[in-house]
Amino acid sequence: MELKGKVLIAQGGGPTAVINQSLVGAVLESRKFPQITKVYGAINGVEGIVNERFMDLTRETTNNLEKVSKTPASALLSTRVKPDAAYCKEIFKVLKAHDVRYFFYIGGNDSADTVRIVNEQAQISDYEFRAIHIPKTVDNDLVINDHTPGYGSAARYVAEAFIGLNLDNRALAGVYIGIIMGRNAGFLAAASALAKKYPDDGPHLIYLPERAFSIDKFLKDVKEVYQKYGRCIVAVSEGIKDEEGNPIIANLTDNVETDAHGNLQLSGSGTLGDMLTKLVKEQLNITRVRSDTLGYTQRNFIGSISDIDSQEAREVGEKAAQYAIWDNIDGSIVLERTGTYSVNYRLVKLEEIARKTKYMADNFINAAGNNVTHDFYLYARPLIGSGFLQPHRLRAPMATQLLR
Amino acid sequence: MELKGKVLIAQGGGPTAVINQSLVGAVLESRKFPQITKVYGAINGVEGIVNERFMDLTRETTNNLEKVSKTPASALLSTRVKPDAAYCKEIFKVLKAHDVRYFFYIGGNDSADTVRIVNEQAQISDYEFRAIHIPKTVDNDLVINDHTPGYGSAARYVAEAFIGLNLDNRALAGVYIGIIMGRNAGFLAAASALAKKYPDDGPHLIYLPERAFSIDKFLKDVKEVYQKYGRCIVAVSEGIKDEEGNPIIANLTDNVETDAHGNLQLSGSGTLGDMLTKLVKEQLNITRVRSDTLGYTQRNFIGSISDIDSQEAREVGEKAAQYAIWDNIDGSIVLERTGTYSVNYRLVKLEEIARKTKYMADNFINAAGNNVTHDFYLYARPLIGSGFLQPHRLRAPMATQLLR
Repeated sequence: MELKGKVLIAQGGGPTAVINQSLVGAVLESRKFPQITKVYGAINGVEGIVNERFMDLTRETTNNLEKVSKTPASALLSTRVKPDAAYCKEIFKVLKAHDVRYFFYIGGNDSADTVRIVNEQAQISDYEFRAIHIPKTVDNDLVINDHTPGYGSAARYVAEAFIGLNLDNRALAGVYIGIIMGRNAGFLAAASALAKKYPDDGPHLIYLPERAFSIDKFLKDVKEVYQKYGRCIVAVSEGIKDEEGNPIIANLTDNVETDAHGNLQLSGSGTLGDMLTKLVKEQLNITRVRSDTLGYTQRNFIGSISDIDSQEAREVGEKAAQYAIWDNIDGSIVLERTGTYSVNYRLVKLEEIARKTKYMADNFINAAGNNVTHDFYLYARPLIGSGFLQPHRLRAPMATQLLR
Repeated sequence: MELKGKVLIAQGGGPTAVINQSLVGAVLESRKFPQITKVYGAINGVEGIVNERFMDLTRETTNNLEKVSKTPASALLSTRVKPDAAYCKEIFKVLKAHDVRYFFYIGGNDSADTVRIVNEQAQISDYEFRAIHIPKTVDNDLVINDHTPGYGSAARYVAEAFIGLNLDNRALAGVYIGIIMGRNAGFLAAASALAKKYPDDGPHLIYLPERAFSIDKFLKDVKEVYQKYGRCIVAVSEGIKDEEGNPIIANLTDNVETDAHGNLQLSGSGTLGDMLTKLVKEQLNITRVRSDTLGYTQRNFIGSISDIDSQEAREVGEKAAQYAIWDNIDGSIVLERTGTYSVNYRLVKLEEIARKTKYMADNFINAAGNNVTHDFYLYARPLIGSGFLQPHRLRAPMATQLLR
């Protein structure tokens, strides 16, 4: 039985570099079906629904859609709003008025929960309606998924950044601490390891939220590497936690924000890096200690888009339209890896994804809890795509010393 | 009269993404001359001379040199050491022992001064010796030069970063403050303007060390932009100063380092951004205010190398060998712009460049002192090279609202 009506697509949460591939995949595929009367895009996620701000994407050119697909960060703009039952009532009033029968929401585990709630309310109000969650997140923390669209490009940026940071730190030796996005899962910080080519390349140490962070252990580790190489590069996940699971950043400062989802603000501040720098300077008596917080550029850099990530982001958008319109079912699309390297897609129940967090597998983290393993390398390398640039070193012989 | 002997090349100061192009240009060109007995590279700049740590680049393969040329950050490693007369005495002992007759030093205005001092000491000791300063600096602050190798690639990175940061800030509106490298000259912060495509794109405000920074004016500017667009992107040079010429960062914290050249440490800390964020939050009562310090990635990012910058960096290296070996003269190579767009090279006296700082021209800065002009755009655009990626927006019509 064909469900006739409009498709509505929206984007929620933090942008990624390939989130518009999913949008365009869903738009182009939806436009092929005769029972789809129109394809709308909600401006600012669910806010655009209650405010009735819809862009008519049926009237967008294919050329421009293709160009937008290559542009980072939610083209329909985003939101951090999380609907409750009252908000959903407003949403349904609007969806009914516009005869929207298909809703595709591109986002992370918070957005998956939004889709779940909206879908639940549709069933309660007996409104025939299909809702699909299209996965995206640079954190790579959606359960069931092998990985999530958005991660590969962010990982590529982080790896490319650490190639240069490692070379810079070789040229002017010291301790360098790079703070990387990742609230609960360390996948993005771990991607810094992909920068390593030569045996003494950094990052030499990688700290992840999956392992309790001890300041004493951190200082001991840095000292050891510094004594060995005369320099040390550290990659630190912004979400590192102590033994009790409290974020280290919350221990170091009392001036932190929380968002609508109750999440602590970790990005957009240099606090964690500056505090760790201070510790190394003071406790280890090392002069040249520098820190950068890699910042928002990680999730939206136009110059480091992974082709693999881009293609998969496009495909999950297409699949959303196919599952909903051909199969008339709801759910969340998941990516499964097969062989080395290909992916398959399938649909799971929304509640299987919503609000759940995937962490790095134990075999991705070394025993000391301060680096990643070769298993992680094998996992992550395909995701950053082709054309990944490599650094090269001089390897001419040293001249004989004449004066000593 | 041909001066027979060795060539010694070294790299000083902060790395750039194309500094190895200059190294390889000088090496390959020097290797062509029969009177050049060997081409050495000093490890860690002038430190490698006194420590007699020379790599024999005559024995490096052309293939590997070409690969190294495309790798960011000083392949011979760098130094912040600035020689005095005693240090120069040590240098000459080594240069004489190795029969080094040509010295090419790749660096900024501090390195130009090093070359000047070394050359002066050569004349005092009556040691026949040619010394050339090869320009590089991401700050773009060498006098006489139209621009400096290293700047174009750093500018490209900054511009690419702000494309994404602007899109991100559109998607999740708020105030975003990006802190950009540039001790005395604002060229790199100004390059953020190259990210703008659409009329309402950020950066909306750009603060440069060339204009006194007033916190009251800054807050007024941000408020105005925020009221107009519902968001605001600010690019701030790390070197911004108050009316008296004191760095703002020094006014905001008393915990700052200085290097061997007496320069205040500006990079490698999030302090300035965090302090400005705090001001905006508290004084303007805006909730979502974020700041990133773009950090060392600006000068060493492997993925944003400008082809124009790369070619010019190669050429200044080649020209060093040609001026010294063909013409038997000392000096600093300068780049002159001709037409739109080409460059010529010429040699000027070392003292014309050493320790001097070029600032942004008045016609590059707007009257309000909070942005750049179209003249700056015309100046900077060719330097970031070809293939600069562009963002695209959806431009479909909005659907008619049915409920209001």
